[in-house]
Amino acid sequence: MKNLKKTLLLSLLSFLIIPTFAQKASWIWYPGDFDIYMSNVMQNRRTERGSFFPVFWKMDSHYVLVDFHKEFTLSQPEEVKLFVEGTYNVKIDGQAITGFSKSIQIPAGKHKFSLKVYSQGTVPAIFVQGKTIVSDETWLTTFEDKEWIDQSGKVSDKSGTTFVSAGSWNLTDPNMLPSKFKLPVVAHYAVNKEKAGNDYVADFGKETFGFLKIHGLKGNGKLDIYYGESREEALSTDKCETLDHLDLNLASKKDSVMPLSKAFRYVNFQAENGVTADSISMLYEYAPVTERGSFKSSDTELNKIYDVAKYTFHLNTREFFIDGIKRDRWVWSGDAYQSYLMNYYSFFDAPTVKRTLLAQRGKDPVTAHINTIMDYSFYWFLGIYDYYKFTGDKKFVQDIYPRMQSLMTYIDGRKNKNGLLEWMPGDWIFIDWADKLSKDGEVSFEQLLYARSLETMALCAKLANDTENATKYDRAAKALKTKIFELYWNQSKHALVHSRIADQLTDNVTRYANMFGIFFDYFTPEQKLAVKENVLLNDKIAKITTPYMRFYELEALCAMGEQSYVLKEMKSYWGGMLKLEATSFWEEYNPDKKGVEHLEMYGRPFGKSLCHAWGASPIYLLGKYYLGVSPDLPGYETYTIQPNLGGLGWMEGKVPTANGDISVYMNKKEIRVSAAAGTGKLILKSKSKPVVEGAEVKEVSKDVYEVKIEKNMNYAIGYNPPAT
Amino acid sequence: MKNLKKTLLLSLLSFLIIPTFAQKASWIWYPGDFDIYMSNVMQNRRTERGSFFPVFWKMDSHYVLVDFHKEFTLSQPEEVKLFVEGTYNVKIDGQAITGFSKSIQIPAGKHKFSLKVYSQGTVPAIFVQGKTIVSDETWLTTFEDKEWIDQSGKVSDKSGTTFVSAGSWNLTDPNMLPSKFKLPVVAHYAVNKEKAGNDYVADFGKETFGFLKIHGLKGNGKLDIYYGESREEALSTDKCETLDHLDLNLASKKDSVMPLSKAFRYVNFQAENGVTADSISMLYEYAPVTERGSFKSSDTELNKIYDVAKYTFHLNTREFFIDGIKRDRWVWSGDAYQSYLMNYYSFFDAPTVKRTLLAQRGKDPVTAHINTIMDYSFYWFLGIYDYYKFTGDKKFVQDIYPRMQSLMTYIDGRKNKNGLLEWMPGDWIFIDWADKLSKDGEVSFEQLLYARSLETMALCAKLANDTENATKYDRAAKALKTKIFELYWNQSKHALVHSRIADQLTDNVTRYANMFGIFFDYFTPEQKLAVKENVLLNDKIAKITTPYMRFYELEALCAMGEQSYVLKEMKSYWGGMLKLEATSFWEEYNPDKKGVEHLEMYGRPFGKSLCHAWGASPIYLLGKYYLGVSPDLPGYETYTIQPNLGGLGWMEGKVPTANGDISVYMNKKEIRVSAAAGTGKLILKSKSKPVVEGAEVKEVSKDVYEVKIEKNMNYAIGYNPPAT
Repeated sequence: MKNLKKTLLLSLLSFLIIPTFAQKASWIWYPGDFDIYMSNVMQNRRTERGSFFPVFWKMDSHYVLVDFHKEFTLSQPEEVKLFVEGTYNVKIDGQAITGFSKSIQIPAGKHKFSLKVYSQGTVPAIFVQGKTIVSDETWLTTFEDKEWIDQSGKVSDKSGTTFVSAGSWNLTDPNMLPSKFKLPVVAHYAVNKEKAGNDYVADFGKETFGFLKIHGLKGNGKLDIYYGESREEALSTDKCETLDHLDLNLASKKDSVMPLSKAFRYVNFQAENGVTADSISMLYEYAPVTERGSFKSSDTELNKIYDVAKYTFHLNTREFFIDGIKRDRWVWSGDAYQSYLMNYYSFFDAPTVKRTLLAQRGKDPVTAHINTIMDYSFYWFLGIYDYYKFTGDKKFVQDIYPRMQSLMTYIDGRKNKNGLLEWMPGDWIFIDWADKLSKDGEVSFEQLLYARSLETMALCAKLANDTENATKYDRAAKALKTKIFELYWNQSKHALVHSRIADQLTDNVTRYANMFGIFFDYFTPEQKLAVKENVLLNDKIAKITTPYMRFYELEALCAMGEQSYVLKEMKSYWGGMLKLEATSFWEEYNPDKKGVEHLEMYGRPFGKSLCHAWGASPIYLLGKYYLGVSPDLPGYETYTIQPNLGGLGWMEGKVPTANGDISVYMNKKEIRVSAAAGTGKLILKSKSKPVVEGAEVKEVSKDVYEVKIEKNMNYAIGYNPPAT
Repeated sequence: MKNLKKTLLLSLLSFLIIPTFAQKASWIWYPGDFDIYMSNVMQNRRTERGSFFPVFWKMDSHYVLVDFHKEFTLSQPEEVKLFVEGTYNVKIDGQAITGFSKSIQIPAGKHKFSLKVYSQGTVPAIFVQGKTIVSDETWLTTFEDKEWIDQSGKVSDKSGTTFVSAGSWNLTDPNMLPSKFKLPVVAHYAVNKEKAGNDYVADFGKETFGFLKIHGLKGNGKLDIYYGESREEALSTDKCETLDHLDLNLASKKDSVMPLSKAFRYVNFQAENGVTADSISMLYEYAPVTERGSFKSSDTELNKIYDVAKYTFHLNTREFFIDGIKRDRWVWSGDAYQSYLMNYYSFFDAPTVKRTLLAQRGKDPVTAHINTIMDYSFYWFLGIYDYYKFTGDKKFVQDIYPRMQSLMTYIDGRKNKNGLLEWMPGDWIFIDWADKLSKDGEVSFEQLLYARSLETMALCAKLANDTENATKYDRAAKALKTKIFELYWNQSKHALVHSRIADQLTDNVTRYANMFGIFFDYFTPEQKLAVKENVLLNDKIAKITTPYMRFYELEALCAMGEQSYVLKEMKSYWGGMLKLEATSFWEEYNPDKKGVEHLEMYGRPFGKSLCHAWGASPIYLLGKYYLGVSPDLPGYETYTIQPNLGGLGWMEGKVPTANGDISVYMNKKEIRVSAAAGTGKLILKSKSKPVVEGAEVKEVSKDVYEVKIEKNMNYAIGYNPPAT
């Protein structure tokens, strides 16, 4: 009880701190613009063997001319400091102040305070710091203020301009312009050096990311640096994916940091005669997120999997959630969608989700699917659905809703005569990296994602108070779901069939639509069981070899209570990579391959990314389906804990929420739970009714009990597990 | 005949030169992007009393990532030099070259040569110079190449990317990056200095534009510079519109050029004690266009009007056609539309028309009318119509057609229940600066411009081979024209009525729709005559006080043969400004005003622009309706010369075309004509059939004859004018 009081006091304090917090200034901009700008910066850092390697879809840009304003009522005059990125003017009540003021006196009373900023190359941004007047997301912005004047000089009152609330992040240093934003770095050192030809290969001990630093570099001649995620790659001077070629002319020793960051474990240092260096190190670059989620169990291999997954995920959590740190270093929607889910069970860093969603969507007009991929457009909608579910952040949904509408309008405009989506010029139907996977005709998987996206639109339309469209999207979603089952459900195969070509159902059954149908809850209980037996657990159906789709496959099995089976799969699949000495998880892993075959992809011997975000899914699976924590009402206002040992002796861990962590410990006799937020229900199986001090317990079905979990209480629940 | 042979030879030579010319490299970019970028640069140079004063509409931007490519077939290998603005890669047949090559060897044979360029702050641009491989508008570009690869590394052949031909201008210096483009300058000196307070006012003799230069500036303290288009403005330190405030700390003498250009005739130099300068001068900045059109007559006042108009127009012909050099220095569509027409009779500089049209339109999505003004959207369409008519440049129409479509789609989406356009939030209905001019309801003037724009769409759809939409636009135009006459023609007033409010015709007759109806040729002959008497020549109808609408008013009268009347009006109106010592023509001139009243506008004593492009319309009127030259088939393939002395004793002048000039001399007995291009018909009135050596003459009606004019011939035609 002492503990409880303390926690309550802390909560109360944090509540009292809020008003002060609201006076904190930050850099603000037109919403989405910093995100688009910074994603351009980040995605244009990729090189392949020294060649610049940018994305192949449309890169949008910020609005170059933006108006910011807010109305304030001051009881006394206030001195306000102004920091601006761009050329600007300042107006009080519409009257411009001469010059480019760095500080301004706002008189007492009610006043409209405006800044209008032009910046072609960087995002127009302001930082305003007074005692009560500060820049934050309560300011309004527009890219067309339409403040025309009439012949008498009167400003139009008919402009009908749409103002939207400003965007911001955690950029609270007025002297650091938003365009100068950089992730922090820390020095790391190699753990081993090995002679290679004239020079050496340095091993940094594990997969890492950052800027190579050469100490005491001197001489006249060439220096070549070959990076490798594997030793083989670093040694392959003609096939490694990334490198630096330097032409030096240094009379005296100098420390030199490579301008572009790289992903590597090994560095092959090849200097011409006459070029010398004292040593190398690296500046490890990382996102300063907090590791809030955790997992530990009686199984040390599983613990290792969890830790390596978390490291893999942290490496790929950067300015945005990217796919892989060596390659592509881009913001891919399908990859990011999985990162969002992993993030909710690890860092719970909402801003990185928002930045990534905004960067992916860019600006209107929509000229292609997100990343050009049809499925990736749908994952983008699903990402917003999940974001709202986990964070409860209704404002973000309202803000982004117009951009959701324009993307959905683009998609709706591409339906064929059957009301379904199939390939059209410019569309990439991705689904997964898999041999002989047909993308032709009306692929059921795409229709399923489309239906889910329409459901998301209906939900978000409601949140944005667009009831008319909410109804429209809801109807469209229901109609499409009905059509999917009419067209694709094959009663004899007990599964959704892969595709229709020229109005004819194909014979092909794949895992994709079937596994999504399970955790989308689109099947009847009978269909679910049939799909599990006939597809998911059926070795005759083509196997999945990417962690990307294993994510969903294992999720579907977990959703059906197959935690014991999935645990074995995790140990075999991710454990398999660990046995091959992986220090981060890979883009693809096919246990049937041998030796350097594991490094090859895209026809290139080291084409594969050995540190891919989608390889980190155990973070999500262990948090959601073993610790068993997930929100019911948005933002964990209510939530469920349905822990499942899956054969483990014990496990313990934390699941973060926007308002604090939920802790779970479970062994075969006892479950201990505490939560800093929301109201939960713990679901457990027990042969007898568990007795919990101070908690309501009810039986929901035979041997299944529900315990009500209140905020800031510690529960210890003895139980009596039935034989499985 | 000697002359003729020489001209023919020259024509032949210029034809032979074409293949060499095609090998000339120039900087290229995604079409429209340099224009949008440069218009941002230009339009953000405006200040008002030292405050930054940008536009109030959406400023678009360039695509930040652009792919350029072209296929070449080389008989032998070729060394190609590369100049790029941005970060880039180079590919031959899809294979990237390591690093950022400045020079590259292309092997013999057929090859696809590509560059992909990223540039956030400036326009991605390339300059490629080989012997046969050069960058020009035959290269293809895209902002989304969609070159995704499959698991084997194969590039997709399903991308369906739209490639468009590159944009360029006359930027042929590889070492001058497009973003560094600047207009040339030349030194000019003050003609007079007059003591003013502690310091002095310098008079540069006439309206001018450029950068003030202070010679031998020295000392510690403040220097204030007040600019004036009028002496009164320069002297009014607290009300002049533009100024420079400098804080100096110069131990030794230094020449200093002000960073921002200004428009002025007078400069008020006010230095604190301790600050001294030897002298001031200015760097006159100008567009290097060629003065091709000319006009001279027996009337010296008219000649002065023509010369001042041409100077006014040249000052406002800059990176783009702008409204006024002091204010707004922006690209306004309604103003530019008139500049286009003046340009066809003076510089015939097609690139400036194209740049201006592209800059105004910007990018999709359309979120407002051009410059937020409904009428200004329509002038943009009309500008394209005229551009095609005068230049015959079909390619430009085809290139810009998609942007025409999206603007028209925006406009069509704003029709009311009657199928007409009226004010909606965000629309500015401008028409003209005029007191008590109603903008409410369905204004007939806007519907007339809408109909003309639909006609333009029909024409351009045909040129772009979009026959389906050509029919659609044609139908819409015809239907709207019919509706306009059904709804707005008032038989008792013999005029189109100004507007309908709440489905009721108002009583108001204004000049606007009626004068446009004349030169749009929308009226029957009877209606035309009735409109002339009852509106144009009717003093009871509200007078026009801007040269802007006088342009169209006088054009309508000229189109009806009222050259004598219009000549008097020109002499009285523009001559009136000259009598007030104007050295350039004004934004507004109301002869009823007195003294400094002429300088006032927008509630500011010096708010009026004294050098406004729309003040220069005599250039157009004299060329088109006195020299009487205008194209019939696009690009002057055929044309008409219908000269009209309008009471002058004689006149002579030149009208430029894309392929050479058309010269006209006329007195009361003789007409002399020669033309370097096309096939013309000279229409003249004569009491007897004129005899012309070597030319076909036919009588088209009583006393009206048509003489066929062949290229590169000199005609001298005696005639016998009927009494007027």
